[in-house]
Amino acid sequence: MPDLFEVTIFGSRYRLQGNGDETYVRSLAAHVDQQMSKLASQMKDIPLQRLAILAAINICHEFFQAQSQTNQQCAFVDGKARDLIERIEEHFDDLRFDER
Amino acid sequence: MPDLFEVTIFGSRYRLQGNGDETYVRSLAAHVDQQMSKLASQMKDIPLQRLAILAAINICHEFFQAQSQTNQQCAFVDGKARDLIERIEEHFDDLRFDER
Repeated sequence: MPDLFEVTIFGSRYRLQGNGDETYVRSLAAHVDQQMSKLASQMKDIPLQRLAILAAINICHEFFQAQSQTNQQCAFVDGKARDLIERIEEHFDDLRFDER
Repeated sequence: MPDLFEVTIFGSRYRLQGNGDETYVRSLAAHVDQQMSKLASQMKDIPLQRLAILAAINICHEFFQAQSQTNQQCAFVDGKARDLIERIEEHFDDLRFDER
């Protein structure tokens, strides 16, 4: 039986499933609530369902940006690792050359 | 003047701002639409605003998981880099020791 935690998002109550991690579930709810409040302050009289969908779009943008950042970091680290291996190999070649 | 792209999410139309990247904006809309459709198939007769908020929660979970994965990868790469530096230093110490 999964744990259920009651949270409040933009004035409505929800029971969310968590795996025993109440702090994490509350941080999810807080982030969605924060995004909705931010949008509501920018767009007056917007229906709640549109507000929620736009908040979902903004969070999805954050998610995709985080994914893109991870991919860029992986490519950067991969490039650095190849560069480092190349330099080490060059250096060892030099040392072998000096020892001959 | 920012570009506006018209997208359809769960049967409703939205005009979303993009920075000239229509494909990206459509991928955001598609992801939110997909999450809402998935939830709707699991929860019958749920009000649209609750569905949208739960979709936002799920996408937020994906975002936080991606962030956590990035942090873990950074810590792993950091550990590997420190280990590599240590081994290289040890190796150079050996070489200096041999040359004395």
